[in-house]
Amino acid sequence: MTAGTVAIGVDWGTTSFRAFRFGAEGEMLEGRRAQAGILAIDAGEFEDAFEELIGDWLDAVPTVPVVLSGMIGSRQGWLETPYLSCPAAVDDISGALVPLTLARGRVIHLAPGLSVRAGDGVPDVMRGEEVQILGAVDLLGATSATVCLPGTHSKWAVVENRRVTSFSTHMTGEVFDVLRRHSILGRGIEHAAWDDAAFRKGVARSGAAGGLLHHLFGVRAAGLFGDLAPEAAGAFLSGLVIGHEIRAAEPTGTVYLVGEEELVRLYRGALETLGHRGEAVAAHAAACGLFLIADSLAREAGR
Amino acid sequence: MTAGTVAIGVDWGTTSFRAFRFGAEGEMLEGRRAQAGILAIDAGEFEDAFEELIGDWLDAVPTVPVVLSGMIGSRQGWLETPYLSCPAAVDDISGALVPLTLARGRVIHLAPGLSVRAGDGVPDVMRGEEVQILGAVDLLGATSATVCLPGTHSKWAVVENRRVTSFSTHMTGEVFDVLRRHSILGRGIEHAAWDDAAFRKGVARSGAAGGLLHHLFGVRAAGLFGDLAPEAAGAFLSGLVIGHEIRAAEPTGTVYLVGEEELVRLYRGALETLGHRGEAVAAHAAACGLFLIADSLAREAGR
Repeated sequence: MTAGTVAIGVDWGTTSFRAFRFGAEGEMLEGRRAQAGILAIDAGEFEDAFEELIGDWLDAVPTVPVVLSGMIGSRQGWLETPYLSCPAAVDDISGALVPLTLARGRVIHLAPGLSVRAGDGVPDVMRGEEVQILGAVDLLGATSATVCLPGTHSKWAVVENRRVTSFSTHMTGEVFDVLRRHSILGRGIEHAAWDDAAFRKGVARSGAAGGLLHHLFGVRAAGLFGDLAPEAAGAFLSGLVIGHEIRAAEPTGTVYLVGEEELVRLYRGALETLGHRGEAVAAHAAACGLFLIADSLAREAGR
Repeated sequence: MTAGTVAIGVDWGTTSFRAFRFGAEGEMLEGRRAQAGILAIDAGEFEDAFEELIGDWLDAVPTVPVVLSGMIGSRQGWLETPYLSCPAAVDDISGALVPLTLARGRVIHLAPGLSVRAGDGVPDVMRGEEVQILGAVDLLGATSATVCLPGTHSKWAVVENRRVTSFSTHMTGEVFDVLRRHSILGRGIEHAAWDDAAFRKGVARSGAAGGLLHHLFGVRAAGLFGDLAPEAAGAFLSGLVIGHEIRAAEPTGTVYLVGEEELVRLYRGALETLGHRGEAVAAHAAACGLFLIADSLAREAGR
């Protein structure tokens, strides 16, 4: 059943767990997915959870590399791994893997995160997205690309010559969520509704004078004047913050999008509205990135 | 006790009630303040509350004009008054007052709000601040000025020739509050602490590349790296959003600040950090504005 497995990769994030068994060409032989994100697991219980989730794979293929990426390597995770400074390639990440010996004696490897510092010294960080980003670029058959992972904390990364050279995080999804749930804007929003035209209007509005803090109040004022129905207000607000994110990211060339289908659709539309081009990375970028790291580790060990 | 009263003005907002008795020269003979903002009063109970708060003044001076401004004229208030389009001067506001007859037979007047539309048609509104803005400019002995009322929803207004010609609202205070209470940023903030140097750093950071949604994540990343202590993070975040507000408002010349002493101090510092100049309007701008409107109403009635 597990024949031909040459590596196991695990993308273990805040809210989800995804594991993959890879064949010799990096093909995914099997995938497993669970709701067991690190927030759902108590400190000290990670090994038990891990054994429960893929202990049978470990039994069946006792020697192949096992690589874990994502928030599992954060302070709230299993074992805190350091952040690697950009620029960073697959080999840099595999060279900085942190080994962890399980009670059964098997050694597994946790990936480091990546960090970068802006000109004024303020840092930025990612954990897990770098694996998806490098995987996406490999899937594209490219060596350089701009990659965006939209979401709660959207990541924009520039990859040059297969190395993540810089990136920035935008709190777009979380800001949208706290505003519609906890600010006065929520009163004018019918949460279950969506309106693509209003979304595009919000994206376009992001370029108007006055900045984001002013544009946000416009959601309320337009509602008071009956210019924005509650059924359209949530989509308008979403377009507004996504528009601000894209403008701030200043993309050049095609933006490769990695993420949930619906979110990728929205970002493609927003990029188009702002005169850019977005393209979805169709295959599983995290799996690809995990295989690349495990493969690099195996080649390193074989030397 | 109420001798010499020529007008009564009431600034009745969301969270507070302030009433003033004025003498013939506009001097404040008496002020009263209560926590009885409109949110604390049930629909249908406004007249009872009003009588309880200043019924004795109405008894004592039965004929002078009584003008109310603020959210009391909103949909959630006593009686919804319209929005007057900018440009608007004191006489425009007094000409658009909405009369309301109390059970005791006395007529009082509720002020309209102001509205303005951006080039792309999105509206902005204020209720009550226009009275403070026109009052502040009068107190300055000026006819033109840029006035800022910092707060939950900061207002920036341009007054030319004693008319509010344009304004913009920024959700700065509310965004700061929901982020520190409901977003991941709150985890890295010691809420009771303050740090002026960190505030100034946040203000300066607002000019860096990447936009507000990216800068917000920097609060978290800097915390992870130990670059920003929890005792400094709240002030840094505050400086960040206030810096973004000021940059977006693009002030020219001195900015006259109307508001709570501590908030005015912060905005003065932020303006200075960004190379601008802020000056506090020391006296009670709302009282002055209410007197101007009541006086205009009386002159109109006397014609």
